[in-house]
Amino acid sequence: MTTKLLRKNYLRARVTSLCVLGLATMLAASVHARPPVTAAKPATQTTAAVLAAAKPGDWRALDPQNTLYLDLPGGRVVIELAPAFAPNHIANIKALARERYYDGLFIVRAQDNYVVQMNDPDYENEAKRKPIKTAKRHLAPEFTVALDAKAPFTRLPDADGYAPVTGFSDGFASARDPKTRRMWLTHCYGAVGVGRDNAPDSGGGAELYVVIGTPPRQLDRNVTVVGRVVKGIELLSTLPRGTGPYSLYEKPEQRTPITSIRVAADVPENERVALEVLRTDTPTFDAYVESRRNHREEWYAVAAGHIDVCNVDVPVRAAGGH
Amino acid sequence: MTTKLLRKNYLRARVTSLCVLGLATMLAASVHARPPVTAAKPATQTTAAVLAAAKPGDWRALDPQNTLYLDLPGGRVVIELAPAFAPNHIANIKALARERYYDGLFIVRAQDNYVVQMNDPDYENEAKRKPIKTAKRHLAPEFTVALDAKAPFTRLPDADGYAPVTGFSDGFASARDPKTRRMWLTHCYGAVGVGRDNAPDSGGGAELYVVIGTPPRQLDRNVTVVGRVVKGIELLSTLPRGTGPYSLYEKPEQRTPITSIRVAADVPENERVALEVLRTDTPTFDAYVESRRNHREEWYAVAAGHIDVCNVDVPVRAAGGH
Repeated sequence: MTTKLLRKNYLRARVTSLCVLGLATMLAASVHARPPVTAAKPATQTTAAVLAAAKPGDWRALDPQNTLYLDLPGGRVVIELAPAFAPNHIANIKALARERYYDGLFIVRAQDNYVVQMNDPDYENEAKRKPIKTAKRHLAPEFTVALDAKAPFTRLPDADGYAPVTGFSDGFASARDPKTRRMWLTHCYGAVGVGRDNAPDSGGGAELYVVIGTPPRQLDRNVTVVGRVVKGIELLSTLPRGTGPYSLYEKPEQRTPITSIRVAADVPENERVALEVLRTDTPTFDAYVESRRNHREEWYAVAAGHIDVCNVDVPVRAAGGH
Repeated sequence: MTTKLLRKNYLRARVTSLCVLGLATMLAASVHARPPVTAAKPATQTTAAVLAAAKPGDWRALDPQNTLYLDLPGGRVVIELAPAFAPNHIANIKALARERYYDGLFIVRAQDNYVVQMNDPDYENEAKRKPIKTAKRHLAPEFTVALDAKAPFTRLPDADGYAPVTGFSDGFASARDPKTRRMWLTHCYGAVGVGRDNAPDSGGGAELYVVIGTPPRQLDRNVTVVGRVVKGIELLSTLPRGTGPYSLYEKPEQRTPITSIRVAADVPENERVALEVLRTDTPTFDAYVESRRNHREEWYAVAAGHIDVCNVDVPVRAAGGH
């Protein structure tokens, strides 16, 4: 039974007949109509088949200039940054990394089904806290940015309760509001955001958090989101939960020390992690989404006929498909 | 900054003016309309204020006959069962517990952002596997049950992509389809389900899984869900992730042994955990949901104007509010 709750064995994948895009469009129309699809599932591809059929060009390598390595005693967390959604914060985070601001700070909070958060435990004590040299401590918020009609965007046809439109921008789950002409990254599992005080401009990137539970979409448009974890999130999601207020660790020795946060481009090539993300602007991605919206695996008795933006887990693999 | 990402300090709560129900209704109408609410937030209650104002009668004690204690070396996980949604499986799970079937089995799988799963690693080996004495190994599926119009149900006005109607039944997140006249428990964080093979009747309760990530709503109506974890889920969500296929543990010694699973009613009273769940059929609960749909805490710049059924975290507390 164990192996049947989720079928994800790409090795056994076999390519089946391809009629996915037409079907996706067809289903898109029906997705908004309740009730969900319960009829016999149309014969199309499983996720395994879609990924097995993907061409090298369906994948893109991470850009070292927009990749962070969060090194912990237990291993490395790889974060892809999304400069289109928070250019100023991402520039500042890279400056903080380059002046080694993060090195030696701590993961100070782990709240089950919510977030892990890192900072300088002394950040409120101007005398004791670690100084910021070249970077900025506070920035104007980038909770949302102006909707760039030319920016890549693969719209999901599926209705979303939290935003008028959701989809994927260069691999990042995001939302748009055509009326206000704004766009933003959605708080899905693995999203990396900028902690702040009550004042919208009280953040800047010196304190980061990562989502490790049910997507807290109520945070959308309330916090600057800068990217997502693409590898190693289990190093964060399995941390012991804090037992203090807000799930802060009560004892300093419970905190996980941050060895370093570095921009991948600053790391010798032979020490980098070569990863590829499935491109989200291709027919292969459309087929992938459809394979998640309506599972074709034998195990499934009923196809959902719908998918939320945070349930589309954009695939990441070692470069070359290893 | 840390303490501001989420305000949840019930101690500081102050009760403010009450106009929540009218507001909830008002917002309900606008919820289905995109775009989301971005106007100044109406003055109403924070979650802390709602819970601080709750009366003892707004809470209900767990029924020991429908409560399971999953005891692990690290502590106790408390599971509340929902017999209205899976009567046969729950009767069988209680029988399995009472014949001590689970005791000495293992957590064999932990997949990040998905589930942890427990079973008899030898379940496929009829000669080696642990025998089932009085209970049944397989049952007809209870993926959905007949919609009981008399069953308690607090409907969420918010649109849901996976089901025609969602809401809460005696504290359990659930969905309904008025057309097919069926109802089912939704796969939210902490949901407890029955593992099965491809055949719909291949489960029975001998193998259980718990959701520890993004709600896998695509599993709804595909698996029998029997209840939810109400205490101790961090004992499961922080387990090291498996590195084998389907995130199974590769080495037997990596598995977490199950000390026992017992029905709370079978445990001496002085060894029980006295818990209360916020009733979901009260004005207090309506106010609680609204306080999560549109956060009033000073930290929030924008109110979501929507909430998904899996983002309503039904509060649990020690009996008497301790």
